[in-house]
Amino acid sequence: MKRDQFYLPNGIIYLDGNSLGPVPKAAAARVQQAVTDEWGEQLITAWNKAGWFHQPRDLGNRLAPIIGAQNGSVVIGDTLSIKVYQALAAGLNLRPERTVILTDSGNFPTDLYMAEGLIKVIDRDIELKVVLPEEVGKHLDETVAVMMLTQVDYRTGRLHDMAELTKKAHEVGAVALWDLAHSAGALPVDLEACHPEFAVGCTYKYLNAGPGAPAFIYTRPDLADKAEPALSGWMGHNKPFSFERTYTPSPSVERMRVGTPPVLQMAALSAALDIWEDVSLHDIRAKSIELSELFIAEVEKRCPEFLLISPRDSALRGSQVSFAFEHGYPVIQALIADGVIGDFREPNVMRFGFTPLYIEREDVLNAVCILEKIMREKSWQQEQFSKRSEVT
Amino acid sequence: MKRDQFYLPNGIIYLDGNSLGPVPKAAAARVQQAVTDEWGEQLITAWNKAGWFHQPRDLGNRLAPIIGAQNGSVVIGDTLSIKVYQALAAGLNLRPERTVILTDSGNFPTDLYMAEGLIKVIDRDIELKVVLPEEVGKHLDETVAVMMLTQVDYRTGRLHDMAELTKKAHEVGAVALWDLAHSAGALPVDLEACHPEFAVGCTYKYLNAGPGAPAFIYTRPDLADKAEPALSGWMGHNKPFSFERTYTPSPSVERMRVGTPPVLQMAALSAALDIWEDVSLHDIRAKSIELSELFIAEVEKRCPEFLLISPRDSALRGSQVSFAFEHGYPVIQALIADGVIGDFREPNVMRFGFTPLYIEREDVLNAVCILEKIMREKSWQQEQFSKRSEVT
Repeated sequence: MKRDQFYLPNGIIYLDGNSLGPVPKAAAARVQQAVTDEWGEQLITAWNKAGWFHQPRDLGNRLAPIIGAQNGSVVIGDTLSIKVYQALAAGLNLRPERTVILTDSGNFPTDLYMAEGLIKVIDRDIELKVVLPEEVGKHLDETVAVMMLTQVDYRTGRLHDMAELTKKAHEVGAVALWDLAHSAGALPVDLEACHPEFAVGCTYKYLNAGPGAPAFIYTRPDLADKAEPALSGWMGHNKPFSFERTYTPSPSVERMRVGTPPVLQMAALSAALDIWEDVSLHDIRAKSIELSELFIAEVEKRCPEFLLISPRDSALRGSQVSFAFEHGYPVIQALIADGVIGDFREPNVMRFGFTPLYIEREDVLNAVCILEKIMREKSWQQEQFSKRSEVT
Repeated sequence: MKRDQFYLPNGIIYLDGNSLGPVPKAAAARVQQAVTDEWGEQLITAWNKAGWFHQPRDLGNRLAPIIGAQNGSVVIGDTLSIKVYQALAAGLNLRPERTVILTDSGNFPTDLYMAEGLIKVIDRDIELKVVLPEEVGKHLDETVAVMMLTQVDYRTGRLHDMAELTKKAHEVGAVALWDLAHSAGALPVDLEACHPEFAVGCTYKYLNAGPGAPAFIYTRPDLADKAEPALSGWMGHNKPFSFERTYTPSPSVERMRVGTPPVLQMAALSAALDIWEDVSLHDIRAKSIELSELFIAEVEKRCPEFLLISPRDSALRGSQVSFAFEHGYPVIQALIADGVIGDFREPNVMRFGFTPLYIEREDVLNAVCILEKIMREKSWQQEQFSKRSEVT
């Protein structure tokens, strides 16, 4: 769909855009411009002249349509972990009498860790209840302050029904917080219709904004002036440059800003968002399903050792496909050595992301051929592939 | 001292490096390399191959000597506001029975705001006690859990005696937390000798790492495995890639890491730190005092309307000089229009930073000439300079 707008190295089939998207071709020049023309020439005055100060809001508004959010409801900054903390703290604050954060075992660990950390700081008797993904609905009751879920399971690709679960949460008076790390840019998300209180996500996966790109946070417009930001930094102050001694939060979602925004990363994000201007998320979804179905069918035909652990029904799956295999780690290493980049997640999961902006049917077919060859030749049994490195 | 290593626009005298340092010449290429060679060519594998994962620790170790910190005691990440929150939360946690955070009215507002936010979240009966800078010592008593101070006052340049106040804090059993935003790279700091529990700072001022460059946090080595990180993100986990369901902090200062590090900003920081490799902070301090004294003497001689609000004694001053003037805002605007960049802080403060790496005596003399001319010609009274913009 937009392959010509990305740089993809020769001979590489990149099935890991669900972890880190590739470089938009325009990003290098945009970042360079931020370094030389803005920082270099304008120095401190670029905060006004180059619009740095308002980037978190402006880029938030450009990202908003991708997740079905209203103008003025999204702000960019920090990391996803930080934004989870803010949203969760704000959610608990909206339900001071309740005692449970409900989440599931498919949530990304950092969301659970941030919740753990917050509970320790808070000194309020809060339970982090981790249930099976399919049992979240059953555990929603009037003890639940916040239902905190990642829509797409990072390990299996299992997709939650955001509309349905948010509705159920609201029926029992719980606040809904969605982590869209593996949804934003992967499938249509309609925050306005689903009406959760908070959503957060990152921009370095399907949105292709680069390593360590900033996160985003959505606050439902009716809560924009009520949600307590918890991390009440000066950039979220109503008048940051008045340097008042006490904190008065911005009346908008900008209260969720904390410190100085990462301008160079913002430049890359800006280039990445350009690509989305005329993309239909429904087209993305259709192609994502087509590629994923093709991959599943071909892998099951040619590599019977692998067990599909993603939902077979595409309606219940995000834009990645995972197979379990006892020797998944060396197989992924051998694949990478042969130019097919997927990744591995403990204990035995081989993950493959299908990112329709730049992946085609041909890539999928070629990737499966190489996978089949590796399994047939058993090249993954070579010593060089068996040692686990720290980051995979 | 290192002027040839920076890009400074033609015709500009830059006296605002205390707010945002200029571009190190090597930064553009370094950032470009991160975009094209690392992100572009290596994609997800750069987390290992290009060393991205360990940058927060590796760059922390390179920054450590600048603040007199031990190897392994500093980690890079997030923003200063976030790091203040972590250090403060950890400090309070070390003194659970105490009820006061002691700070001064010269502290940068975001430090106060973050403390406010933390106190609200914490739900423990904590008072944020804001006293006059010269009275901090007097208010240190056994109610104080954490003494949280910025060493150099952002508005006046007043310099606290870190050794003396830390000693006093320890005598009453308080934890000492120093914000080095205006100290790191501006003057010699000796964390190892002063022995505070925590220190934090930013890298975009005197360290020249660029707009939105990440912050740093120092944890005293004996507390590295005891300090509660509060913002317990996956990158601070002992085994982040084991994806365990519960949080086990790293036994080192790396527990203060939170989310995915901003790789492009890290590249700029790396180029910026190269410049410091063979710089003596004592030479920096000597030259900073020389430049500041010259500026004060010349301004007082030629612009008698201005009132020095920085300490006159250079031993009590950081590397900036501030004058108060009722019409400070339009004067600064007129100065900027004439190529001398200083900045303005409410209500009437004109700030000038003296950054010996790239500022010389000649710059100081020229800047004062232009200032004198503006005051004589009253060009600051022109309409165009009187309107306040958002960011100054």
